[in-house]
Amino acid sequence: MTTPSRSRKKTISAARDALPASTGLDLGPLPGLLGYALRRAQVAVFADFMASFAALDLRPAQFSVLLLIRQNPGCKQSDVAEALGILRPNFVAMMDELDHRGLTQRTTSKGDRRSYAIFLTQAGEALLDAAMKVVAEHEARLTSAMKPGEPEKFLDLLARIERAVPAR
Amino acid sequence: MTTPSRSRKKTISAARDALPASTGLDLGPLPGLLGYALRRAQVAVFADFMASFAALDLRPAQFSVLLLIRQNPGCKQSDVAEALGILRPNFVAMMDELDHRGLTQRTTSKGDRRSYAIFLTQAGEALLDAAMKVVAEHEARLTSAMKPGEPEKFLDLLARIERAVPAR
Repeated sequence: MTTPSRSRKKTISAARDALPASTGLDLGPLPGLLGYALRRAQVAVFADFMASFAALDLRPAQFSVLLLIRQNPGCKQSDVAEALGILRPNFVAMMDELDHRGLTQRTTSKGDRRSYAIFLTQAGEALLDAAMKVVAEHEARLTSAMKPGEPEKFLDLLARIERAVPAR
Repeated sequence: MTTPSRSRKKTISAARDALPASTGLDLGPLPGLLGYALRRAQVAVFADFMASFAALDLRPAQFSVLLLIRQNPGCKQSDVAEALGILRPNFVAMMDELDHRGLTQRTTSKGDRRSYAIFLTQAGEALLDAAMKVVAEHEARLTSAMKPGEPEKFLDLLARIERAVPAR
């Protein structure tokens, strides 16, 4: 590993201070690793997301599915699964649950009688509206740490990092 | 949710293009959500990390533990667990495995006879050296997507976001 620059060292020391458990241990190069910092931030953010959603009895992936169905009424389930990168067996179980809870409805697709067209029910629309409010509050907590323009910069960096690693 | 600004819209559309599965579905506000983008990037980066580490037979958390022990020879196991946010039962099992593989060694601590002082063995040092090379290559893939100064900016944003959400 190359020696960190002075500004990098400053950032590493700032990141170190952010660690919740201060045990006096020397963390060495760990806080300066992008992968480690990314994972720590994601774990913290995801925990906040999960806690915010607990009252709605909705998992994050279910939220994404409901949102995509609203944006694309009558879409095929296989397209939703693919767009979100959800594996087929997991997705089928998830759709069964959403149907069972009366949040979604499936009808046989006109074009392809073997595939379903998915829609939100009124209950699904209402739950998604409530979820969008919770998400907006969660996002506001995240952007509260940022200056104007930084959320866009952060989204851009995340997208570039995602493209930079080979698909597995 | 507020209407995204023009530059935010541009970023959202760039992020949308980065999505691996292009199904033609309208993803709506999803790619512009920081939490969603953070999770997608982390999943991709973590998969790359795991694949890079497969040959070493080392999980990411085990890597962090070995690194912390090298930085703090003779440290207490409870401090390592706390510094990395690893739950106690998981950590005990992990230390047993590292010991069993001959990578770490535990001796009774002088100060507190009930707690262990942990050290790396020569094999542990060698494996950690190999792991550091793999990590450096992984980090280089991530920074290849960035301009000078951006890795520091990214670390800073991640640390601020982690601090912005309440600890759960």
